[in-house]
Amino acid sequence: MQKVFFDYSGILDEVSAEEVNACLKKAVSARDKLINKTGEGNEFTGWVDLPVNFDKEEFERIKKAALRIRQDSDVLIVIGIGGSYLGARAAIEFLGNSFYNEKDGLKVYFAGNSLSQKYLSDLISLVKDKDISVNVISKSGTTTEPAIAFRVFKDLLEEKYGPEGAAKRIYATTDKEKGALKELADKQGYETFVVPDDIGGRYSVLTAVGLLPIAAAGFNIDRLMEGAAEMRDISLSRSMDIPALNYAAARNALYAAGKKIEITADYEPSFHYMNEWWKQLFGESEGKGHKGIFPASVDLTTDLHSMGQYIQDGERLIMETVVEILDQPGDIVIHREEDDTDKLNYLAGRDMEYVNSRALEGTMLAHIEGGVPCMRVTIRDQKEYTLGQLIYFYEFACGVSGYMLGVNPFDQPGVESYKRNMFALLGKPGYEALLKEITEKAAARSKEAAK
Amino acid sequence: MQKVFFDYSGILDEVSAEEVNACLKKAVSARDKLINKTGEGNEFTGWVDLPVNFDKEEFERIKKAALRIRQDSDVLIVIGIGGSYLGARAAIEFLGNSFYNEKDGLKVYFAGNSLSQKYLSDLISLVKDKDISVNVISKSGTTTEPAIAFRVFKDLLEEKYGPEGAAKRIYATTDKEKGALKELADKQGYETFVVPDDIGGRYSVLTAVGLLPIAAAGFNIDRLMEGAAEMRDISLSRSMDIPALNYAAARNALYAAGKKIEITADYEPSFHYMNEWWKQLFGESEGKGHKGIFPASVDLTTDLHSMGQYIQDGERLIMETVVEILDQPGDIVIHREEDDTDKLNYLAGRDMEYVNSRALEGTMLAHIEGGVPCMRVTIRDQKEYTLGQLIYFYEFACGVSGYMLGVNPFDQPGVESYKRNMFALLGKPGYEALLKEITEKAAARSKEAAK
Repeated sequence: MQKVFFDYSGILDEVSAEEVNACLKKAVSARDKLINKTGEGNEFTGWVDLPVNFDKEEFERIKKAALRIRQDSDVLIVIGIGGSYLGARAAIEFLGNSFYNEKDGLKVYFAGNSLSQKYLSDLISLVKDKDISVNVISKSGTTTEPAIAFRVFKDLLEEKYGPEGAAKRIYATTDKEKGALKELADKQGYETFVVPDDIGGRYSVLTAVGLLPIAAAGFNIDRLMEGAAEMRDISLSRSMDIPALNYAAARNALYAAGKKIEITADYEPSFHYMNEWWKQLFGESEGKGHKGIFPASVDLTTDLHSMGQYIQDGERLIMETVVEILDQPGDIVIHREEDDTDKLNYLAGRDMEYVNSRALEGTMLAHIEGGVPCMRVTIRDQKEYTLGQLIYFYEFACGVSGYMLGVNPFDQPGVESYKRNMFALLGKPGYEALLKEITEKAAARSKEAAK
Repeated sequence: MQKVFFDYSGILDEVSAEEVNACLKKAVSARDKLINKTGEGNEFTGWVDLPVNFDKEEFERIKKAALRIRQDSDVLIVIGIGGSYLGARAAIEFLGNSFYNEKDGLKVYFAGNSLSQKYLSDLISLVKDKDISVNVISKSGTTTEPAIAFRVFKDLLEEKYGPEGAAKRIYATTDKEKGALKELADKQGYETFVVPDDIGGRYSVLTAVGLLPIAAAGFNIDRLMEGAAEMRDISLSRSMDIPALNYAAARNALYAAGKKIEITADYEPSFHYMNEWWKQLFGESEGKGHKGIFPASVDLTTDLHSMGQYIQDGERLIMETVVEILDQPGDIVIHREEDDTDKLNYLAGRDMEYVNSRALEGTMLAHIEGGVPCMRVTIRDQKEYTLGQLIYFYEFACGVSGYMLGVNPFDQPGVESYKRNMFALLGKPGYEALLKEITEKAAARSKEAAK
């Protein structure tokens, strides 16, 4: 059953239905490119068929490993950055308790996603006396951030459990045959899972990259894949009303009309990291060649009291995509108070879900009136099956939207620039010439500034 | 001693030193307006002199209340939204352990900053069996989000401790004489603290609004105020090199040159909420009359693996403000490994602080080369005195920058729009006409979309 829906009626003050329809035709062509693998970057479109075409043997191994981690560990450290971090975190925060690491049961912490010495020190002092497993996720095994964190945790585990004991608690998700991490894992005897060759980091949450942490956190990955498969059916169908195509069409129509910033707005704090994942998915896929919609996000109603003023009345560069969750977990009913000092009695008997939903509607209307066209993604609930649909919806919309924009939605050439400079400044062998160049440029710039 | 510095040499590929200097002259005039109280919104500039002109008696009461909370409670629930939320949270996350609620000692949770039923349900089930104090922060006492959360926690405390026992555990930060919360507090006998009339929410972190939660979390608010006072001296001085004026000048020069988005980029995850606070401060102060720089933020190097591609190579609408922290807490040295599979041995003997700082330099250079002008805010450390300077620096720069832009940096007329619609949709008495209007407009829009 379809659990994710898309509605663009809130943009029709800004672009006409004809303009959206014209974009929808382009979206259909872009979809052909995607599924026939005739577009740029088609070697990285393995995610399109993944929900019906994944490695079943590995999938069962993932579930067993997850169970083992839950049995023998207090803490799972997930080491990865970018696509090897955001998908799993987003899913766990979306599906789990708002305070999942403060409750009983396995705690899941993420590491290797920054170079913060403070964070890693604090994390180690928090977990060092607990029973720990580590899932290190890196295609190459040499990405600086996760490699540093993994050295630190590998040392810690080998000290606690000895090299053989540690090896049983380290799970490596990496290339199927080559690279530094694969080499080390084979040598040490870590159990390994595969980062497929035909799926880039930001599209990898439904591979072992995301699945092992999500399963270890206690969630049903069968239902997750079934949901994704359902949305794949919908997205590949001949229907005239496909959420991913409508979304791709609507946002491109708005971009053509001068809306350069897309704000995705949730009304549920546990959606926060889904928006972070979305920002990587769309930002990294489309932000190239000096084009692409700038992705931003807000958690509402929280940020109506911070970014709300700007959205309502700042530069008119914004389109908004509202995420509506129909069944909100929990149960809090507002009680009547004899003494209605705070004037809330008109809400007595209502639950917060109702109030939140009215806030969403009221805000959308205010934003549309203020000149911010609003799209709406409606999702049924915060369960695995729905999440699978939502992930596939976004991925498919992103692939289509990137082709519509005329970019390769599956590469990320700009990510290398900072790495090369950083390596040079760190004195990495092989970067001597670049270091010289950088140093000279920096000196010239200081001289200019001093004038 | 000065602990916060600002450098704009990284924008000189984009704007000339002459252009910045011209803006600097405007910044000086804007400062005159601000300190002479001759600009729009001058009735809300009490924050300018606050660090040397605060209520010393109340300040001592804040410290005593904080101590009492630490002695008699496991948990402090801070209820507030917008300016009554972000400042305290930002300070506590910046100063504290990365996992402060998972360590021994008082735990601090924030509530009433959204309408999420899930979050509030999860929070209650987490804390209900602990000893709880509540700090409810609201000028009026009728803002929907905190009012709902406060009803819920007030019920919980009264059930646990009886009405009198509960009253001793509830601290109200509110208007000094009027409003729903003040009325209730006086009736019930809650200790109260003051939200001053001449300081708006987003400038209120150094009033009781921020100070009580920050002190309760165990931090030295004397040092915080001393730091702010030091930066006030610097900002009001006749020096030619005032960080807040340079920042206001640089960002306005870039805005005039077409940079519509400012991304503030930290390299330390515990700075995340400082950026959220900064987004409210600048976004709400400047985003009006269809102008203002759109504020966004990234946590690096984390987000170099998500937003990095866009920043490097997307639409050239971006200016970046890098936040550099010189003394990074913690101590993690990279060890040499015999078997250098991950190729990190070139870093052996280096600590993470060093690697992080090289990443910062390398990234700035890459962004500048890619057409993203970069400003730099350098702060000495993550201590209270430095934080006080940083807060004042940002506030002063914001007031000056808003006047340079030609807006009233101290109002937020747009924030009311969603509230009015929400009240109408919730059936609040007095909003019947608006409800009718909204319903008719929505029907017309649906009809248009169905065509």
